[in-house]
Amino acid sequence: MKIPEIIIVEVLHQPGSLVKVLQVIADEGLVLEHLTALRREQGRTLWEITLEMDEDASRSLYERIDALPTARFVGKSDRVFNRHRGGKIRTVSRLPINTLNILRDVYTPGVARVCLAIQADPRKVHDYTAIDNTVAIITNGTAILGLGDIGALAGLPVMEGKAALFAELADISGVPILLKTRDADSVVAAITAIEQSFGAIQLEDFAAPECFEIEARLRATLTKPVLHDDQHGTAVVTLAALITATRRLGRSLRVSTVGQIGLGAAGTGIVRLLRAYGVGRVLGADRNPAAIARIESMGAEGATLAEIMARCDIVIATTGVKNLIPAASVRPGQIILALSNPEAEIDPLEAMERGAAFAADGKGINNVLAFPGLFRGALAAHAPRFTDAMLMAAADAIAQLAGEDLVPNPLDKLVHERVAAAVMIAAMQPVTSEAGTPEVTG
Amino acid sequence: MKIPEIIIVEVLHQPGSLVKVLQVIADEGLVLEHLTALRREQGRTLWEITLEMDEDASRSLYERIDALPTARFVGKSDRVFNRHRGGKIRTVSRLPINTLNILRDVYTPGVARVCLAIQADPRKVHDYTAIDNTVAIITNGTAILGLGDIGALAGLPVMEGKAALFAELADISGVPILLKTRDADSVVAAITAIEQSFGAIQLEDFAAPECFEIEARLRATLTKPVLHDDQHGTAVVTLAALITATRRLGRSLRVSTVGQIGLGAAGTGIVRLLRAYGVGRVLGADRNPAAIARIESMGAEGATLAEIMARCDIVIATTGVKNLIPAASVRPGQIILALSNPEAEIDPLEAMERGAAFAADGKGINNVLAFPGLFRGALAAHAPRFTDAMLMAAADAIAQLAGEDLVPNPLDKLVHERVAAAVMIAAMQPVTSEAGTPEVTG
Repeated sequence: MKIPEIIIVEVLHQPGSLVKVLQVIADEGLVLEHLTALRREQGRTLWEITLEMDEDASRSLYERIDALPTARFVGKSDRVFNRHRGGKIRTVSRLPINTLNILRDVYTPGVARVCLAIQADPRKVHDYTAIDNTVAIITNGTAILGLGDIGALAGLPVMEGKAALFAELADISGVPILLKTRDADSVVAAITAIEQSFGAIQLEDFAAPECFEIEARLRATLTKPVLHDDQHGTAVVTLAALITATRRLGRSLRVSTVGQIGLGAAGTGIVRLLRAYGVGRVLGADRNPAAIARIESMGAEGATLAEIMARCDIVIATTGVKNLIPAASVRPGQIILALSNPEAEIDPLEAMERGAAFAADGKGINNVLAFPGLFRGALAAHAPRFTDAMLMAAADAIAQLAGEDLVPNPLDKLVHERVAAAVMIAAMQPVTSEAGTPEVTG
Repeated sequence: MKIPEIIIVEVLHQPGSLVKVLQVIADEGLVLEHLTALRREQGRTLWEITLEMDEDASRSLYERIDALPTARFVGKSDRVFNRHRGGKIRTVSRLPINTLNILRDVYTPGVARVCLAIQADPRKVHDYTAIDNTVAIITNGTAILGLGDIGALAGLPVMEGKAALFAELADISGVPILLKTRDADSVVAAITAIEQSFGAIQLEDFAAPECFEIEARLRATLTKPVLHDDQHGTAVVTLAALITATRRLGRSLRVSTVGQIGLGAAGTGIVRLLRAYGVGRVLGADRNPAAIARIESMGAEGATLAEIMARCDIVIATTGVKNLIPAASVRPGQIILALSNPEAEIDPLEAMERGAAFAADGKGINNVLAFPGLFRGALAAHAPRFTDAMLMAAADAIAQLAGEDLVPNPLDKLVHERVAAAVMIAAMQPVTSEAGTPEVTG
């Protein structure tokens, strides 16, 4: 994976010393992205050099720079790590507290009146606290990204990332909560003990199959929106991409045969939402019989990878296994979404060469398109839970804004506003379609 | 309690209509603080009028205004409630996320490298997340302010207030956590399940006696700073006030006889810290024998209110009972801190008239002077716990900045910087004084 790297090099302050460094970089076949003099002292200059490079390529470059008589390789300044340094979020006061009068209003003694008003009428908590704008982002670290069970603490950068995206894209205050507990009983108990702190709850990177039970139990007992993003966020964006793709090809998604390869949290969520959307024929492949049984209860059927490639108009893969799909198995006209990050089950370019009508990987089909607006809309509607109508409304809103790609740019704030509005409207509709659109059940 | 109230009055847009309203206000004996025309429409003007008034006085004023032929009382705009509307805190991203490049660094795929780095070396969580800047503000609502057991949800405005003050005064991200659980076992279990989300834990408004056991057990098992603010924050500020008062009077605090009236969380914390500071003779009064037994284990002795007033050089009251201390019992030269909010055990002016050398109520002696710097210093030092040395260092720093009053202005950021620096230094000193300064034990 080529990513921009920043290296720091010290050179003697004399003619030609920098050009020798740049020549080494050129000889390594690396493109210079940016060059800045950080400081000059005692006849030496410190340069910050930004390159696009493989991590593997680093060592020989550093040794060759160090071997120059007029230069010294000082170190690497990793931009990704720099962007995480000190964390990605912070809490701010919505009001400057700069007079004793304000202090006495927002803290003691004034705050006592607000507390008593909420005690007398608990609904006032929605007016006089930030609770309707606050979403817990909860993980126990058992399935962080595609990295597996690396623990909740190691997953904190992901939770902070989601909180930062909530803040930037939907003005929602996300609160990372790292659980020590692992089994469903303990997770449900821990979340139940603290849930009244938040307006809604996003479950994040819980491993299957516990994730299904945990979400279902919390949805059954809490009267606020609970969403396991890995299941439903990914499903919403996948559904949006399929709506776009089939519309462009003049096909009907509902009468297409869809195959889902990999039935973890994301794959199961995709099968479930496609069935709720009305796709008649959904096949699913997984080596775990319990996962197959789960989608069979949703009206889908078990299959092998080969059967899916042979029979399906649309193939979706969420396995985490690089190059799982043989290029030779791609049939002309198929729509292929190979969603695993960072390495897809098949290179979209390769799939297109084999005649796929559309092919995309997980870089574009990202749940960041869905979760900010889903929660904004649910909170605005004071929805007691997420319904399939809300998820499908979000998918439709995303599909409507797709430009050249299958889905729109996730940094376009209009997307999140439209998703939020669509979700809010769906949440406020009377439920009339329960037969056709079963509720989210995890 | 006189507080500024904002009322909205609509008057006909004709000469003399506003002055009639102002005359009614004057007739009620109320002082006008501010007057603003909000808007004019259809021959009427909407005025916002700020008055200093009792809440009791409101109704007759509104009726008299409404009785005017040229005016209409529209409603009350409560400034305190307005300042709490929508909540007092929000989470922001520390970095604008406005390019796909940044998105890919702070979220997927870049964040995976940061997660793996923390998995390989958990200490890196301090470098690449906000955890060292994040303090949970946890309550179960059993002793909110002086209001008692009003429930955690009704206490949320207090927790948000603390978070807002953390943000404004010490750049700390406070996270309100409302617990449903009440008994010590369940509270400890719930906090233990989520503690790794935070750099430190502030326990807030837990009722005595459970608060002592809860804090002690968490301190024993967690390797991060835990502080029950009601016990120790109030104690630090009280100690600071006493250091200032005795210094000004040329007396020694350590050889003074101190009486503490009321041995709930705050009173017990004050007795404990004064004993740790080296005050030889501390008396405590409470109707609960278990509370007396608790301070006896700290080397203090039980007494009645009358005995305390008769024998003590310094009297502190934290009972929540208005006018508990008879003015006639005040002896010349006493230092009296009547700390209950919003109504003190004795009016400081009355105590001064009776010959007190110093008298203050809880409005100035506020734990907001202590907790931001205490946590900033503890986090900066990566302290595994709060020690008495840290609490006393904070009290000394506060006392050193006292101006005309016993303690400095809590909105002076220098106070919090100095407290943080003093606490950090105390945290990093080798512990050499354990004999004289027992650890905080709750």
